[in-house]
Amino acid sequence: MIKVGVVGGTGYTGVELLRLLVAHPSCELVAITSRAESGKAVADLFPNLRGLTDLSFVAPDAAQLGECDLVFFATPNGVAMTQVPELVAGGVRVIDLAADFRIADQAVWEQWYGMRHACPELLPEAVYGLPELNRQAIREARLVANPGCYPTAVALGFLPLIEDGLVACDFLVADTKSGVSGAGRSANVAMLMGEMGESFKAYAIPGHRHQPEIRQTLSRVSDEPVGLTFVPHLVPMIRGIEATLYARLTDRSVDLQALFEKRYRQDCFVDIMPPGSHPETRSVKGANHCRIAVHSPREGDVVVVSSVIDNLVKGAAGQAVQNMNLMFDLNEDCGLNQVALLP
Amino acid sequence: MIKVGVVGGTGYTGVELLRLLVAHPSCELVAITSRAESGKAVADLFPNLRGLTDLSFVAPDAAQLGECDLVFFATPNGVAMTQVPELVAGGVRVIDLAADFRIADQAVWEQWYGMRHACPELLPEAVYGLPELNRQAIREARLVANPGCYPTAVALGFLPLIEDGLVACDFLVADTKSGVSGAGRSANVAMLMGEMGESFKAYAIPGHRHQPEIRQTLSRVSDEPVGLTFVPHLVPMIRGIEATLYARLTDRSVDLQALFEKRYRQDCFVDIMPPGSHPETRSVKGANHCRIAVHSPREGDVVVVSSVIDNLVKGAAGQAVQNMNLMFDLNEDCGLNQVALLP
Amino acid sequence: MIKVGVVGGTGYTGVELLRLLVAHPSCELVAITSRAESGKAVADLFPNLRGLTDLSFVAPDAAQLGECDLVFFATPNGVAMTQVPELVAGGVRVIDLAADFRIADQAVWEQWYGMRHACPELLPEAVYGLPELNRQAIREARLVANPGCYPTAVALGFLPLIEDGLVACDFLVADTKSGVSGAGRSANVAMLMGEMGESFKAYAIPGHRHQPEIRQTLSRVSDEPVGLTFVPHLVPMIRGIEATLYARLTDRSVDLQALFEKRYRQDCFVDIMPPGSHPETRSVKGANHCRIAVHSPREGDVVVVSSVIDNLVKGAAGQAVQNMNLMFDLNEDCGLNQVALLP
Amino acid sequence: MIKVGVVGGTGYTGVELLRLLVAHPSCELVAITSRAESGKAVADLFPNLRGLTDLSFVAPDAAQLGECDLVFFATPNGVAMTQVPELVAGGVRVIDLAADFRIADQAVWEQWYGMRHACPELLPEAVYGLPELNRQAIREARLVANPGCYPTAVALGFLPLIEDGLVACDFLVADTKSGVSGAGRSANVAMLMGEMGESFKAYAIPGHRHQPEIRQTLSRVSDEPVGLTFVPHLVPMIRGIEATLYARLTDRSVDLQALFEKRYRQDCFVDIMPPGSHPETRSVKGANHCRIAVHSPREGDVVVVSSVIDNLVKGAAGQAVQNMNLMFDLNEDCGLNQVALLP
Repeated sequence: MIKVGVVGGTGYTGVELLRLLVAHPSCELVAITSRAESGKAVADLFPNLRGLTDLSFVAPDAAQLGECDLVFFATPNGVAMTQVPELVAGGVRVIDLAADFRIADQAVWEQWYGMRHACPELLPEAVYGLPELNRQAIREARLVANPGCYPTAVALGFLPLIEDGLVACDFLVADTKSGVSGAGRSANVAMLMGEMGESFKAYAIPGHRHQPEIRQTLSRVSDEPVGLTFVPHLVPMIRGIEATLYARLTDRSVDLQALFEKRYRQDCFVDIMPPGSHPETRSVKGANHCRIAVHSPREGDVVVVSSVIDNLVKGAAGQAVQNMNLMFDLNEDCGLNQVALLP
Repeated sequence: MIKVGVVGGTGYTGVELLRLLVAHPSCELVAITSRAESGKAVADLFPNLRGLTDLSFVAPDAAQLGECDLVFFATPNGVAMTQVPELVAGGVRVIDLAADFRIADQAVWEQWYGMRHACPELLPEAVYGLPELNRQAIREARLVANPGCYPTAVALGFLPLIEDGLVACDFLVADTKSGVSGAGRSANVAMLMGEMGESFKAYAIPGHRHQPEIRQTLSRVSDEPVGLTFVPHLVPMIRGIEATLYARLTDRSVDLQALFEKRYRQDCFVDIMPPGSHPETRSVKGANHCRIAVHSPREGDVVVVSSVIDNLVKGAAGQAVQNMNLMFDLNEDCGLNQVALLP
Repeated sequence: MIKVGVVGGTGYTGVELLRLLVAHPSCELVAITSRAESGKAVADLFPNLRGLTDLSFVAPDAAQLGECDLVFFATPNGVAMTQVPELVAGGVRVIDLAADFRIADQAVWEQWYGMRHACPELLPEAVYGLPELNRQAIREARLVANPGCYPTAVALGFLPLIEDGLVACDFLVADTKSGVSGAGRSANVAMLMGEMGESFKAYAIPGHRHQPEIRQTLSRVSDEPVGLTFVPHLVPMIRGIEATLYARLTDRSVDLQALFEKRYRQDCFVDIMPPGSHPETRSVKGANHCRIAVHSPREGDVVVVSSVIDNLVKGAAGQAVQNMNLMFDLNEDCGLNQVALLP
Repeated sequence: MIKVGVVGGTGYTGVELLRLLVAHPSCELVAITSRAESGKAVADLFPNLRGLTDLSFVAPDAAQLGECDLVFFATPNGVAMTQVPELVAGGVRVIDLAADFRIADQAVWEQWYGMRHACPELLPEAVYGLPELNRQAIREARLVANPGCYPTAVALGFLPLIEDGLVACDFLVADTKSGVSGAGRSANVAMLMGEMGESFKAYAIPGHRHQPEIRQTLSRVSDEPVGLTFVPHLVPMIRGIEATLYARLTDRSVDLQALFEKRYRQDCFVDIMPPGSHPETRSVKGANHCRIAVHSPREGDVVVVSSVIDNLVKGAAGQAVQNMNLMFDLNEDCGLNQVALLP
């Protein structure tokens, strides 16, 4: 049994990680930290866990995380980077679900996140935890940067096209939509149901932190500079991301359906839908799958990809467990066999 | 492995049953029938099942249901009663998720369901499949009538009070609320999202079919006649039932919390919440639990119970699987360990 | 033109009052106060008002409210009572949309609201602003206590029955449901869309502040002591209240439909629906109507009333405007002719 | 008073037209037709209209539409074209809210709508009813083709850019999102709340009828061929459209904010939001406004426009009333002063 600790278990990413970990056959949850809720039973805060765990939140310093095999950070940006060096030095492996280690270029990270990086020396060894791209490196990593939710949906949709040089990279468009759980579980007037219900809007059009993250991923597989326009939107639902991706094809002769199917043949959590499909976010609600459809609308010179994930599963906690499975030589889908809840 | 057939797999109860059965460790799904969708792959209709089953719907007559160990009927009312006699006679055990066998009194059934009963001779042996009330009889049953969704939530909330004679049975009130999946998956203007979204209403105040079903259950454990006022409401959400129950206490001295905890001590799917709680439907979304809180508001002469279930799980498919587990000597919670999806 | 001031214009009651007042033909909005948003254009906070007002929020002390004919308080409980005495003494009429003057008995108020009342001397003259009960007194009032949202829906449903002594008052049940806007527009984890969406729950079963308010209203028209069990619930929608009311009839011979129609014949905002109806909250969304249906389910000894309002209109801002119209001898429905938004 | 008839009053466009017309000061509603609901009181089908109209639906043939000054068609595509010639010949002016007269090229229309056009001779004189583009022609029109909902939001967002030749027209992207009321009020499993709630998806990626309509509008003001990729999506809410538009700027020096403000200076229903804004659909819920924000994200070579309307108002019934006002020399905003419902 893998001894697992969770730092920061009170947000939506945290409770989702707990949902998966309490049912995981090969790991033992030994500590869940929260400064604010220290002493409170986990199941009192999250009644879906009643009867499944008798752990209580503990203060971070009391958590004896050094005795874990693996620690997940489900903390706000900027927290993990202050604690990871000591853990890693002590032989504990780490998966950070926040953004501290996602961007390799320290200057870019500091510009977008508005703070100094506390341990830039670890940036080179941190592995970007997208298994469909970095499976082998993840297996051996001490420190995994779990990808952002939008970046997961967008990268999986663009990768086959860019790896094969089939689109004009100077004008890629990613129009993305997320349920409100992506904004987290903190007191915020803007995220009240009275504000978010029955309404839809774009946000962060001038720039969003996930843009440089996606650009980094795509640039690594592209021969050309990547010009990405990325606009996120908020949907009045709780879970789910849909990304609609647009690019101009440089080669109209390619069989896009076959290309995508071949690219992800080995990836148990990427499902290429049949031609003509329109994936729904509900088809992955609570599950770790990414479902993708690829289209080339009538004129044939444009490719449109629709990619859906559950932002809290494949976009966060599920992908983190997938990474854990790789790091500890388990089956990649161990403990991740939840069937999406439909309806 | 139990060989299982599902008759009528295209409604919400059907797809929920499939969600549970494809992941159940001790059963093998051998046939799913649908006259309308015959020949279509199940996963084409329900994309959450992609990769989990390669079954296609078959016409009912071609299904060779007689070779199954167990057949679930997830059909409209009035269908099962025409097919069950032959199956049972052939040694196949049956769980009917519709209402055909829920009411023992044929005349009452015919009045409320507006048709003649096709096999009244089976009514006496049909077991009402509420495990918390009839566990032993279910184990041995050939034919189980799976309870209605509202009746499950209401009966579990009232049973401890009525079994012990603690309330005035002449004026019981059950004010119940259901998500829209309870109305099924058939084309119906009234259930469009444009009609049901952002609105709330009572319905069927003059009378609802679940009233006699609940009354039958409560009458069986009551010394007095049961006068039940039952009003259902529609909530603009997909899953979940909440029942708020009101009665006058005849004995104010009883410790209601202890009473409820003791009553359900042996029942793994009934969770009595701590004193002062208000169960949320989301705490059971996708799970087979019923969570209950019991209150005696300020004057102390009234008891108020709030009981929540997922109408498609403990209110339908999950309870059916729980009954199957009992009938085939499996652990009662086998294949029913889903953690509720929160948020 | 009536010169109107609004104290506390940044909550949902405030913005709804602004929606109605900017379109009201006989009043001129001269000041909107908010300490937190002082200096900000009202239309920057509430984009639905763009082009309709060029007012900015001002600090309360700078608002020169003494020059208004009427001041609305849309503030948290406990604010109005500290400012009303000076305004009233200066000849300004006041409508308080909070609870400060709703309960005549100072001790009861202080118990439920957990603070000392700042101006108990005004309690005797404050008029409870339910026009359907107190129309004449409202016309002449200096100080109107605008009713709570639940109390409006519940009182209008029970009044005809209790005024005529037709029900047993010792066990009245009001099971009420509200959209989330009733909980206000302040930062609160519990009211995030991630917490409230797709879920339903009861709350405040042990006791809610609207219970004594309703009890006071009903007691004033009852010959008997009123025993009221009141349970509120939260519905995953923004606007709307539905109240389902239960009582035992003491006289089964009465024509309930005729009784209700007669009682409200003069009331332009109370709509008695045809026999057999089930009012939907969406039928009053954005409008000042209360729609009511009265039923006597099958046994005939019980009466069930379903009453719906928009909690922000008839349950708050619309009723306040209705009261203003009465106080200033306008037509009662002046500026209140909005048609409910359906769908 | 303008004598007005409505053909096909039972869908969402129909009831929205009725909401606006019953409150319009200069028109008299003389007939509402529906074959299916003939004889039924309009207010029985749409309870928001109780007390506001005593009309009943009449069969189309009995409606004496020839005596109206204006007839609105709120019918399915293909109905108006069979009845309009006779009406227009008799001097009745017509606004068709369906698509029969939107596309000037008969062959294109027949290809996309899958039927023969019944009166191609009227196509040349039909005026495309977008007042911000064709105000003068609408004033004099006998026959107005009311624009589609998506085309209204998209055209208003692209027009300033294309009229001034500021973007590369060969690759325009319109990623659009609509509430479910856009799909109409007919029995359809796919639009049940159980199917549409808590989920998001793209649809019609291979081609949607609004694409040629938008292309026609943009082509009329463009010097270059217009290459438009248009993808619609369904949002789990009832009302509202948001369109996010992407294009490459050919001239980075232009002040986009000033351009948009100048373009719509005379248009009372188009609101250009301040720089940096992200319009929400709720800011126009129930109102006839289109709110637009224009951005040029960081690199500066791309323009992103976000445009919101209420699909049933500016996207259908409100725009139709706006067109009526123009046709009958009323103020353009007559009867269209509804304030958006927020929250």
